[in-house]
Amino acid sequence: MEYLLIDAGGTSTKVFVYDGEKVVRQYKYEPASVDKVGPYKSVLRLSSIISSFNKKFNGIAISLAGIDSEVMAKEVKSQLYQLLSKYADKVIIEHDAHVVLMSNVNKGCITIAGTGSIVYGFDGSKRIIKGDRGWLVGDICSGFWLGREFLHELLKEFQGLSNDRSLIQFSNFKTEEDLVRFLYKNSCNPAKIAQYSVNLLNAAKRNSTKAVRILNSCMSEFSTLVQIVCKAVNSNVVYYFGGMYESPVYVSFFSRELEKKGIKSVKSKSVINGLLRLLEL
Amino acid sequence: MEYLLIDAGGTSTKVFVYDGEKVVRQYKYEPASVDKVGPYKSVLRLSSIISSFNKKFNGIAISLAGIDSEVMAKEVKSQLYQLLSKYADKVIIEHDAHVVLMSNVNKGCITIAGTGSIVYGFDGSKRIIKGDRGWLVGDICSGFWLGREFLHELLKEFQGLSNDRSLIQFSNFKTEEDLVRFLYKNSCNPAKIAQYSVNLLNAAKRNSTKAVRILNSCMSEFSTLVQIVCKAVNSNVVYYFGGMYESPVYVSFFSRELEKKGIKSVKSKSVINGLLRLLEL
Repeated sequence: MEYLLIDAGGTSTKVFVYDGEKVVRQYKYEPASVDKVGPYKSVLRLSSIISSFNKKFNGIAISLAGIDSEVMAKEVKSQLYQLLSKYADKVIIEHDAHVVLMSNVNKGCITIAGTGSIVYGFDGSKRIIKGDRGWLVGDICSGFWLGREFLHELLKEFQGLSNDRSLIQFSNFKTEEDLVRFLYKNSCNPAKIAQYSVNLLNAAKRNSTKAVRILNSCMSEFSTLVQIVCKAVNSNVVYYFGGMYESPVYVSFFSRELEKKGIKSVKSKSVINGLLRLLEL
Repeated sequence: MEYLLIDAGGTSTKVFVYDGEKVVRQYKYEPASVDKVGPYKSVLRLSSIISSFNKKFNGIAISLAGIDSEVMAKEVKSQLYQLLSKYADKVIIEHDAHVVLMSNVNKGCITIAGTGSIVYGFDGSKRIIKGDRGWLVGDICSGFWLGREFLHELLKEFQGLSNDRSLIQFSNFKTEEDLVRFLYKNSCNPAKIAQYSVNLLNAAKRNSTKAVRILNSCMSEFSTLVQIVCKAVNSNVVYYFGGMYESPVYVSFFSRELEKKGIKSVKSKSVINGLLRLLEL
């Protein structure tokens, strides 16, 4: 028995070969998240990865990030089902947030925070999405959000619009000119902007007033979304997943805000669990 | 005598042929703003426009938008001076904000607000730039800024995070799904996002509480920048220029905030005046 479990995210595509009892091999490929690489490349990459194994599996389960538009989700899924049907009789493609939830519970609430962010709930029949919807106006408290806030404060410091010039020391920019050049080159590169969330978290760790304010302010909004979704799915637990939670500072601000609202935050199990459940293994 | 006066902006490149007394012909081409089309295309477009006249002029003056990085400004200017030297003995290239200022006074303060925004001052020797620095974290109160704020509020309304759902009626989006599809396609298109500033201004005109709050909040910050620059150049007048000021609502919010700070706001004269002054005509 061999199954293919795929976690197709915005940073990489992780592929696990499962023998019915355990993961026996794993691989890493280029990202295939629909919002990052577009629907065309996403379908192309996934089908080329799977075809490269050159064999038929007992089942394939894919956790696919970025299929947040229903129209786009339908289009991508139907193309993939058609292309992949020859590699397994059972092919299941799911929204990554749902897979994270399934990795932990049948019904409930989860958050993902990496370059983007989402608060997702499932009550057994209805799905609820809050936040999310891309970096321009959505994705509260994501890496992109915090990175942008950091750079925004930095610009104010360089322009002499802030008496407290404490964030400059947490950046690699020496002058406003350095910052301008970076911005003009990278404003359309969410992953690159998101990297500056690390600078903000470092500043918060050293108790920078500004960094703490930025973090508190977005966590307050983020946790309100979690509260709304938890209420809708009748739970007082949220499972969290994604790169931002690798920072203990981020986790502590997140957990504290939720505790105030009577919600317990728990680190999510591996998405492999969710993928196996989708395949009913 | 024939002079070429060029206003190279983010929306179009306007070219005027001046006979020493008046503009005798004018043309419109694709935009050549350095931050919008990049330094390579900017140089290419401007030199191809000018070469197409196939003659030598008595002088060429260019108001060039988007040369906000000093390094980039030097690079673009030196390339253009070299390429254009055969079309006129006198070629002058200036930052568009300085040309707007020169169109009105020798020293003082101006603002430009279109897709982007800037507050610029010149005291006779020193140049001061506040705001500006691109749409991601700068450009306060620009079309992009207001468009993004409008879409941000719209997302909240669609997600049921706001009791007041009054902005939806001022948009062309019927559902959250419509908005998601638009955002995923256009988040990296500042001009497209800036178009939604019109929706916000329409809502403000009809006294929408949210729209008025957004406009008041950015105008308060924008006018503080003007105040800082006015103080630095020892003036209590600001000349304003750019697409956003075509809206009477925008102008009234802008003027009112500045009035509170004791600063008079005056509509800028045509940039042709500034270009002629650069050529000492």
